[in-house]
Amino acid sequence: MIYLDNAATTLHKPEGVAEAMTMALTSMGNSGRGAHEATLDASRMIYGTREKLAELFHIPDPMRIAFTCNATESLNIAIQGILNPGDHVITSVCEHNSVLRPVYRMAKQGVTYSLLTADEKGVMQYDQLPKLLKKETKVIAVTHASNLTGNVTDLKKISDFAKENGLLLIVDASQTAGCIPIDVQDMGIDVLCFTGHKGLMGPQGTGGIYVREGLRIASLKVGGSGVKSFDKEHPDTMPTALEAGTLNGPGIAGLGASLSWILKQGVEQIHEKELSLARRFLKGIAEIPDITVYGDTDAQMRTAIVSLNLGDVDSAEVSDWLWEDYGIAVRAGAHCAPLMHQTLGTEQQGAVRFSFSCFNTEEEVDAAIQALKELQE
Amino acid sequence: MIYLDNAATTLHKPEGVAEAMTMALTSMGNSGRGAHEATLDASRMIYGTREKLAELFHIPDPMRIAFTCNATESLNIAIQGILNPGDHVITSVCEHNSVLRPVYRMAKQGVTYSLLTADEKGVMQYDQLPKLLKKETKVIAVTHASNLTGNVTDLKKISDFAKENGLLLIVDASQTAGCIPIDVQDMGIDVLCFTGHKGLMGPQGTGGIYVREGLRIASLKVGGSGVKSFDKEHPDTMPTALEAGTLNGPGIAGLGASLSWILKQGVEQIHEKELSLARRFLKGIAEIPDITVYGDTDAQMRTAIVSLNLGDVDSAEVSDWLWEDYGIAVRAGAHCAPLMHQTLGTEQQGAVRFSFSCFNTEEEVDAAIQALKELQE
Repeated sequence: MIYLDNAATTLHKPEGVAEAMTMALTSMGNSGRGAHEATLDASRMIYGTREKLAELFHIPDPMRIAFTCNATESLNIAIQGILNPGDHVITSVCEHNSVLRPVYRMAKQGVTYSLLTADEKGVMQYDQLPKLLKKETKVIAVTHASNLTGNVTDLKKISDFAKENGLLLIVDASQTAGCIPIDVQDMGIDVLCFTGHKGLMGPQGTGGIYVREGLRIASLKVGGSGVKSFDKEHPDTMPTALEAGTLNGPGIAGLGASLSWILKQGVEQIHEKELSLARRFLKGIAEIPDITVYGDTDAQMRTAIVSLNLGDVDSAEVSDWLWEDYGIAVRAGAHCAPLMHQTLGTEQQGAVRFSFSCFNTEEEVDAAIQALKELQE
Repeated sequence: MIYLDNAATTLHKPEGVAEAMTMALTSMGNSGRGAHEATLDASRMIYGTREKLAELFHIPDPMRIAFTCNATESLNIAIQGILNPGDHVITSVCEHNSVLRPVYRMAKQGVTYSLLTADEKGVMQYDQLPKLLKKETKVIAVTHASNLTGNVTDLKKISDFAKENGLLLIVDASQTAGCIPIDVQDMGIDVLCFTGHKGLMGPQGTGGIYVREGLRIASLKVGGSGVKSFDKEHPDTMPTALEAGTLNGPGIAGLGASLSWILKQGVEQIHEKELSLARRFLKGIAEIPDITVYGDTDAQMRTAIVSLNLGDVDSAEVSDWLWEDYGIAVRAGAHCAPLMHQTLGTEQQGAVRFSFSCFNTEEEVDAAIQALKELQE
């Protein structure tokens, strides 16, 4: 199998991830519950993973990071926990349903929202931001990169606008954490939502949310906390405030191992490797007749995603051919990004998405190019 | 280490759990996202785990089970998703904070609640139920077994009362799933909340919720679903309705492996083994001077938990001694069950909890007995 569906989940994990999971499974207790060695080991390991995340994202205090089970949970916490009836939120047409649907849900409870549009290449029209501002605007919630086009959001522009207007900035880093350098301080990010199983190359079932010091978010869930058991309310100090119940010990251990590997390689190096594969692919398919490639592929800063269609063939058909005849795994269809498809005019056709990992090879890229050429012959 | 903290998390997992996790990590894609072999493998594995859970709990349709990250999430979904302002809920003093705190949270939104009390042995006073009933009562939410005393709730009595009065029954099976036979149909359970890492002997980060056919629960989270991407609302069909975002593939694979082992052994056999260890322990410590053992230890149906105190020594001190001098891991303190401690009069002292797994041995039990004897000499 040539696996080019890394934007859905990375399949090739760094050395040590599986071993760390097994070690946690077979030797660690329940973090924060009790004081014997097994539980202390779990607590130390979990704190260690927080520290690595803090280093990766330049977060001043590791305790401002709560673990969740995926980016969707993080985004629901952020969007449902910060917005109240009467508030207004700006989001964009580039968003995944994990941003849009929580916003739509809040809209039913009296929150209003506006959508930043994008041009035909899927690039956000940043100059439209001032027109979307209302006196009730509290939050801008945007993706750091589109899961469909691979376009990277100019967070500097968004963040400057947010700061100028006293807005909170929630960033969905599902497609960028581990793939593109993120500095929450430099980028002015108030809330960063990320998943562990994509660019961070950890296991599924992991994710997290960083909440800037001084900002309090109402939790979705309350329950056992291992501390202050006699209080009627769940503790409101981070990270416990957003972590009710037993954490995913083995998952967090695996994530810790992949983070060690990423920190050692450097995200810049990983990004360069992945982008060079994507560019090789783009170059190789450029001359294929009747191919449509989406997104701002000339931009210098991109993720390693290339979405395309062949003529007017249904995207699912193309991905089936690639799988059946070439053993190439990609993703077709709607990619949970309905407004992005509307912008690109691909609601019906969907799009065939190729997404590269730093563990992919040039030979795999060339095989994918060759397959597309043959399909269009 | 002699690990007797299995009610917090089981440390000894059945053969095959770690291997299944590694296999999922290294070979499976993102379930429900795409159509290549890796994602199909993930979908098949996840459905297989649903099927095993359905078999274990006698659930008619595996698709009525949604995966969550822990029992706390399941209980929050159930309690927050079913109750509305104006509703009344009956719960009990035997509950863990994962039931109590969601109820307290709903109370702030206009839900009222009543607490079923327990006697000095921690046994629920079932005959008080009729007095707690109001015309607004919608739900009874109770634990299947106390995580402090090991007392098992007489679900038949509760369920009969619920059915007679048209109430929904939510059961917290955190301490019983995998340890005691559960039949949702026979027991009249409308919503079953369980965790994967205790009696089910799977990995932390797994859990689930069964919702009876015909009952719809509002989800806590919405987002990507892999299907119906152009709908503004998250799909409302089970299990997708309660599963937003990427599932914990490796965790669910590990849980599938432990479930296979449990189904092969039989829960009755596991229960007998565990309870015989607990009874051996109870018998061995009976003559220790100045020892207080909590709970209805003579009851025939119990979980393998024994909580105790030595004189008026702080429970944390006893557990520290056991760990430092004997390498015995138990749990002391408040156990996230504040009202149970109030009922037993152990708010200050806490309690030292010994909890046995079917993988513990008689030798380990005897070592724990001997250690307690020496501490009280």
